Amino acid sequence: MPLLSFWRDQVGSIADRGRELLSFGAKRAPEPGDLARGLLSQRGEASGLALAQDLAAAIPAMDDLAFEKFVAVLAGEFACDPKEVENAVAAWQQQPGDKTLAALRDAVEAPRQELFRRLNMAPSGTATLVRFRQRLLKLTGKRPELRGIDEDLRHLLASWFNRGFLRLERIDWHTPAALLEKLIEYEAVHEIDGWDDLRLRLAADRRCFAFFHPAMPDEPLIFVEVALVQGMPDAIAPLIDKQRGTGDPQAADTAVFYSISNCQDGLRGISFGNFLIKQVVGELSGEFPNLKTFVTLSPVPRLHEALKRRDAANFSLERLERILGEETLQALDGDGLDDPIEALARRAASGEKLSPLLAQGLHRLALAYLTQLRQSGRAFDPVAHFHLSNGARLERIDLDADRSAKGLSESLGVMVNYLYEPKSLEANHERYVDTGTVPVSRKLAAETDVAAKQWDISEAA
Amino acid sequence: MPLLSFWRDQVGSIADRGRELLSFGAKRAPEPGDLARGLLSQRGEASGLALAQDLAAAIPAMDDLAFEKFVAVLAGEFACDPKEVENAVAAWQQQPGDKTLAALRDAVEAPRQELFRRLNMAPSGTATLVRFRQRLLKLTGKRPELRGIDEDLRHLLASWFNRGFLRLERIDWHTPAALLEKLIEYEAVHEIDGWDDLRLRLAADRRCFAFFHPAMPDEPLIFVEVALVQGMPDAIAPLIDKQRGTGDPQAADTAVFYSISNCQDGLRGISFGNFLIKQVVGELSGEFPNLKTFVTLSPVPRLHEALKRRDAANFSLERLERILGEETLQALDGDGLDDPIEALARRAASGEKLSPLLAQGLHRLALAYLTQLRQSGRAFDPVAHFHLSNGARLERIDLDADRSAKGLSESLGVMVNYLYEPKSLEANHERYVDTGTVPVSRKLAAETDVAAKQWDISEAA
Amino acid sequence: MPLLSFWRDQVGSIADRGRELLSFGAKRAPEPGDLARGLLSQRGEASGLALAQDLAAAIPAMDDLAFEKFVAVLAGEFACDPKEVENAVAAWQQQPGDKTLAALRDAVEAPRQELFRRLNMAPSGTATLVRFRQRLLKLTGKRPELRGIDEDLRHLLASWFNRGFLRLERIDWHTPAALLEKLIEYEAVHEIDGWDDLRLRLAADRRCFAFFHPAMPDEPLIFVEVALVQGMPDAIAPLIDKQRGTGDPQAADTAVFYSISNCQDGLRGISFGNFLIKQVVGELSGEFPNLKTFVTLSPVPRLHEALKRRDAANFSLERLERILGEETLQALDGDGLDDPIEALARRAASGEKLSPLLAQGLHRLALAYLTQLRQSGRAFDPVAHFHLSNGARLERIDLDADRSAKGLSESLGVMVNYLYEPKSLEANHERYVDTGTVPVSRKLAAETDVAAKQWDISEAA
Amino acid sequence: MPLLSFWRDQVGSIADRGRELLSFGAKRAPEPGDLARGLLSQRGEASGLALAQDLAAAIPAMDDLAFEKFVAVLAGEFACDPKEVENAVAAWQQQPGDKTLAALRDAVEAPRQELFRRLNMAPSGTATLVRFRQRLLKLTGKRPELRGIDEDLRHLLASWFNRGFLRLERIDWHTPAALLEKLIEYEAVHEIDGWDDLRLRLAADRRCFAFFHPAMPDEPLIFVEVALVQGMPDAIAPLIDKQRGTGDPQAADTAVFYSISNCQDGLRGISFGNFLIKQVVGELSGEFPNLKTFVTLSPVPRLHEALKRRDAANFSLERLERILGEETLQALDGDGLDDPIEALARRAASGEKLSPLLAQGLHRLALAYLTQLRQSGRAFDPVAHFHLSNGARLERIDLDADRSAKGLSESLGVMVNYLYEPKSLEANHERYVDTGTVPVSRKLAAETDVAAKQWDISEAA
Repeated sequence: MPLLSFWRDQVGSIADRGRELLSFGAKRAPEPGDLARGLLSQRGEASGLALAQDLAAAIPAMDDLAFEKFVAVLAGEFACDPKEVENAVAAWQQQPGDKTLAALRDAVEAPRQELFRRLNMAPSGTATLVRFRQRLLKLTGKRPELRGIDEDLRHLLASWFNRGFLRLERIDWHTPAALLEKLIEYEAVHEIDGWDDLRLRLAADRRCFAFFHPAMPDEPLIFVEVALVQGMPDAIAPLIDKQRGTGDPQAADTAVFYSISNCQDGLRGISFGNFLIKQVVGELSGEFPNLKTFVTLSPVPRLHEALKRRDAANFSLERLERILGEETLQALDGDGLDDPIEALARRAASGEKLSPLLAQGLHRLALAYLTQLRQSGRAFDPVAHFHLSNGARLERIDLDADRSAKGLSESLGVMVNYLYEPKSLEANHERYVDTGTVPVSRKLAAETDVAAKQWDISEAA
Repeated sequence: MPLLSFWRDQVGSIADRGRELLSFGAKRAPEPGDLARGLLSQRGEASGLALAQDLAAAIPAMDDLAFEKFVAVLAGEFACDPKEVENAVAAWQQQPGDKTLAALRDAVEAPRQELFRRLNMAPSGTATLVRFRQRLLKLTGKRPELRGIDEDLRHLLASWFNRGFLRLERIDWHTPAALLEKLIEYEAVHEIDGWDDLRLRLAADRRCFAFFHPAMPDEPLIFVEVALVQGMPDAIAPLIDKQRGTGDPQAADTAVFYSISNCQDGLRGISFGNFLIKQVVGELSGEFPNLKTFVTLSPVPRLHEALKRRDAANFSLERLERILGEETLQALDGDGLDDPIEALARRAASGEKLSPLLAQGLHRLALAYLTQLRQSGRAFDPVAHFHLSNGARLERIDLDADRSAKGLSESLGVMVNYLYEPKSLEANHERYVDTGTVPVSRKLAAETDVAAKQWDISEAA
Repeated sequence: MPLLSFWRDQVGSIADRGRELLSFGAKRAPEPGDLARGLLSQRGEASGLALAQDLAAAIPAMDDLAFEKFVAVLAGEFACDPKEVENAVAAWQQQPGDKTLAALRDAVEAPRQELFRRLNMAPSGTATLVRFRQRLLKLTGKRPELRGIDEDLRHLLASWFNRGFLRLERIDWHTPAALLEKLIEYEAVHEIDGWDDLRLRLAADRRCFAFFHPAMPDEPLIFVEVALVQGMPDAIAPLIDKQRGTGDPQAADTAVFYSISNCQDGLRGISFGNFLIKQVVGELSGEFPNLKTFVTLSPVPRLHEALKRRDAANFSLERLERILGEETLQALDGDGLDDPIEALARRAASGEKLSPLLAQGLHRLALAYLTQLRQSGRAFDPVAHFHLSNGARLERIDLDADRSAKGLSESLGVMVNYLYEPKSLEANHERYVDTGTVPVSRKLAAETDVAAKQWDISEAA
Repeated sequence: MPLLSFWRDQVGSIADRGRELLSFGAKRAPEPGDLARGLLSQRGEASGLALAQDLAAAIPAMDDLAFEKFVAVLAGEFACDPKEVENAVAAWQQQPGDKTLAALRDAVEAPRQELFRRLNMAPSGTATLVRFRQRLLKLTGKRPELRGIDEDLRHLLASWFNRGFLRLERIDWHTPAALLEKLIEYEAVHEIDGWDDLRLRLAADRRCFAFFHPAMPDEPLIFVEVALVQGMPDAIAPLIDKQRGTGDPQAADTAVFYSISNCQDGLRGISFGNFLIKQVVGELSGEFPNLKTFVTLSPVPRLHEALKRRDAANFSLERLERILGEETLQALDGDGLDDPIEALARRAASGEKLSPLLAQGLHRLALAYLTQLRQSGRAFDPVAHFHLSNGARLERIDLDADRSAKGLSESLGVMVNYLYEPKSLEANHERYVDTGTVPVSRKLAAETDVAAKQWDISEAA
């Protein structure tokens, strides 16, 4: 960026002078805290860009000690001043109205908000803030007093990463390598094993889309991988098989969302997935009029854990045993374990081929888990919650669908197809949010109905 | 945008259903207020994009009555709830801390902020909001109770139009015509008289730069016109002469910023000019290493008005007469007016060629006006204030420099060169902001010094 | 192009040395002839680019005298050497075979061909050659001995401007102004009256497409203007009316090619129009599935001339009178002219409203002109020949369709719709080329059949 | 390309009819020969694009038998007609002049030239022709009667791939992966070992440039890899070391062209390397003003072979022994071989560390080989000939510089730095072409001078 370097040369002496005024000697580099003070001062108005750039360069260079020190400054000096809040509250209480309310609003906004906005003026300022939050989040676990800083940042980033500012981009083999290597790095669901594997993920019968923000053009925010196939798939392996041939996308009737990965830890808590899936459904429909079905193939990452814990009222050992039924319980008897649920889970996690009877049992447990188990008013399973709150429907449960180590140990090999049917999304969403109802396919509904009495768990929900 | 139309087809029935739920019949189009309610409701999460798009389409279509009705909804229903503020204040007072402060922050943020954020998700949502504010600003003058809405919008737009998100683009004869015609429309200082004139403004010895926001790629936010010439110009006419030939930009030693125009009324109060000029100085320095001087040629738009009003303590008739001096006062005697200042102003405004004596008198008045006259702690002249607060220096006062009707009547034909010297910007800025000092060139300084005693106006400042 | 200027600095001294070797002093600039000699010499291999650039710069700078001198060099020194041709012929006659044939091929290729190829290496070399030929063509009329140079250039340019190298680009209001102004300049059929008119030509219910060559990215080669309307138009005025409103392109069923302009005189004799129309038909069909009819609205530029000349056997006064018929002849009697054909033509050219009887007469004459009058085995009318050899069909003759000065004086106000029906193009083309048959619409065919006996002109064709 | 498919649908029936007319039944696909006949016929003018597309699709699909059959058609039916040539010759002899010469020119151009030009109209026609020639070249070795076809193609492609039409593009890690993988495929000098290696070749202290033709935008024609280093390198290993760190390109004073690869076999005999290197020198100078030296690090691929053959008069065993000198010959005595040159070559090829004495001997042999050994008037070594005819200078001979298997066996581990000094290129080129003189650095010159008498080989050159 030649123009900036020009500018920096020109303002060099001011900057230096500025640094002196800020009372840091010529010898040592200015501390981030001092730069931040300068940036928020009046001085920042004239040479704000140069100071913002200095601070944006200083932040990533900080070691852990310096980082914590800087964070401490933000948490102290740049927090709201309780005195000011008090005064503003008093003024408002005395004379409630637009003006006093505006003053109160100013008083409760921590000065670091303005600092972050000014920092953002620097080239790559936005990326610096996102990475700063990523680092900050590692601290907030142990140091809850820092959550205020994080909340300020989250608020700002949520506003800046508004859906209206994002661009959806298709990613394929014609995408620059510098961006493609980030897919390899960020893929969080089904690891990409090098460039040959990546090329297959981007083959003619695959699609990949990502959201980008204009201020971070080389950094995907979230991406989804889609397979264009015939019929709804019941296992992940054929989709990501490194030996597979390439199908004809025009002949496909089904688009399978088989992997969705968030890329930026620093944007945690700011959700893009809902928009991404819906927009990609639109894009694919435009390109492939033959597509009839839009469906996921998703893991059930807390199934095993839930079968072990059984701490919810309607997920007690007793009820789960009732779900399995006598015959199945007997079949598991021989495993020599007191706990038949544990026995079944162990078998599934080991990857052994289950007998029809046991498979039916696991299917029932998974169905109960997905439709009945709740936490804080939402589905216990995070993947289920994500798709259900998007308005998708629980379409099918696939056993023996993911034989990867992680798939067996966490999901007991089970995967789920969530169906995105445009016409039903809103109604599904509302019922789920209002009443917790999990919409299921007719086939699963039948099974649920038949089973309901025998399970006797619904009333406990 | 095919994908969106696809999506709308798909969600059509939901939207319809949604509209019913929102209790507006199928027959009449939903009212903006209802759409806004829907968009902020839970429903908005599932089909937010469609609702946002409906609202973004409805807003520009509103007639004045509908607009005022919608604004009333925003001012009432979507304002802060005083009850909630009270509660939040009480909670904070009882137990001051991060949590109660965050709750207070939430309570003082009007719900319309979130509404605006959701509206922004629509394609062209940002442009819709900017135009909405433009329309709103026409109302706020007479209806101060609406200023709260405007303040909310301004706050949001200032955050979204952060310098870090803007792109500087050069505009020349290779720019799309659809954008060029906006220059003709938006040029606010020296009118562009059609396409042939425009082409001359973009000739090889001219430069034009504008800031753009990624969400409004076809709309310049602000643009500056620059002439590359030899020597500092003392009149505007030769620069915008429609018969002029084209000079060699490589031979130029001076870049003249002769016109800066803000394009978006809806972004009033959000300042880009400071950044624009400084970045353009950098760009030009990179392209033309021979440039030594960066200077404006600016109007003095309130000079005539100030000479008439004379309401400031140090701008009384008595003092102004002392500035002119005996000999000059006598020379004006023959005009038959009681008021010699008025007499001189009339002559200048008429465009007559002033005698050296009168010219010197006008020069002194202008210098006093620019360096001494203040309002609310800043230079009374708005153009002067803009450049001085950017850190520029008052370099030269040019008489008989703008013979356009507006130039004569407002500025008495006077123009000013403000010098942008990178090394002095910060110091100038600070002194101006701290003490009101107007930095002037050595030549003007000498004149000021000599005159100071005789003027006897400085102490009154 | 910084790299070239770098390179030129570096090779400056060589170039200088080279110029000395080429025996032109340091003082005066090298003559184009000398540069050409240098470029074809061995030296040209090492510093070919620099020499080519010098020559490319020198050619446009030549005054008429210098130009003719340079052309004389090309015609003499750079023509084939008859001696070499003789030798090559002798060798081939002695031993016909691949080798002697190749040698003969080399001998009959004028060295200027290679000169042109090397000149093309310069930046903008292609454009220089095109403009050089444009200038050359002005000379060849009077100086037939220069046609050999032109033929060499035409051959080369035809090869380089092969359809496979051209890009079709849509032109609209988002196209750079520098390109749009060329439309105004090049429009040859219906003049564009400034920028406002241009904007209307590019409105939402209009399309404009042009071919470009990668080596001349800013220069359209040919462009076509299309109106999207309902029904086949029978007059030009409504299509180019400067007050007209904009229609809905989605509602259009007919695409009217109402203006096709070749832009580069230097590419005369190299045909793009055929490809352009057919490809634009494809583009429009893709964008607007509702389009059913692709048709031109074309002038009949030699109708008046032909009615005056009547020098063809089947276009004698006698036969034309027979075409008109007794009643019409009598109606024209009162004009006091010996020649009723002339009388009718004068009335039409004057723009007067013709009586139904006279209108029928003019219609018959135009039909006979278009279907019967031939020259060198092709339709006498050049516009007719162009569309007929493309495979279009004569669909309708529109009287009183072009009331511009040119339209009245040349075409007698008549215009023609040629229909482009993709399925019939090839068959039409072949019959036209093989037998001269002009395909006509059923309605015109009926009229022709009925009239044929009475006209009695077909056998004379 | 939707428009083409539209068009094909439309002309489907014509094509079918055309095929019938061309007497190939509806059942079997048309043969390439028939398509070629159709494309050259009158029919080709109307539906040329469709026929060209058919032929362009048919050619790559031919098996070897079909290919040879098609080539036979081109060699027979589409060759020049000797009868026509005879007639044209006779006419020219009778009346030499522009017209008869033009007719003769037409007669000696084989009709397949026009066929190739029409084929080129198809989308990807150019690429089809390049690949067709690649395949053809495999046949011409054994079947010299096909060289005429190749010569026609080469002539056409040389004209179309004129330097003026090529674009130089930088290739880096932001280049699309689809293009980058071609570098891995085409690198012919120092193999690229997968994507990680590739990324290192494109690191910040490396540059890669390629020429592209607009009709083949995804296919590099030739590319060069450059290392930016300090000082002239004397071995290849550190430059392509897969563990190496990345240097600071701004600190580099030397640009090393260490690999140049032609990518398209079908463009054999059409030279781009000369232009590429010179243009890249210009690009690099613009980006890095600190660069002082532009140099290659090149193999000596026929050194070993030449030392074995010794069939040139000035490269006899006797003279080579004289070059080595007595002491060195004695040192090689112990190897038990009759032939000391062979003994030295074996040692070098084995990769053993040579004693200073033997190293000096090998250095002398290499110097004699590079400066003295000629074939058909040019340097025997092809790499030397390439750089010398570009005007480069033999700067340094590096022993033990390439320890790869190929480097040892062919070049005996020797590499050469050829220096590209812009100011000397033309003079060097001319002397080399005119007199065969190999320009050498002062240091090598001294060595040559000293050695000349003792070597006594120069006069035999």
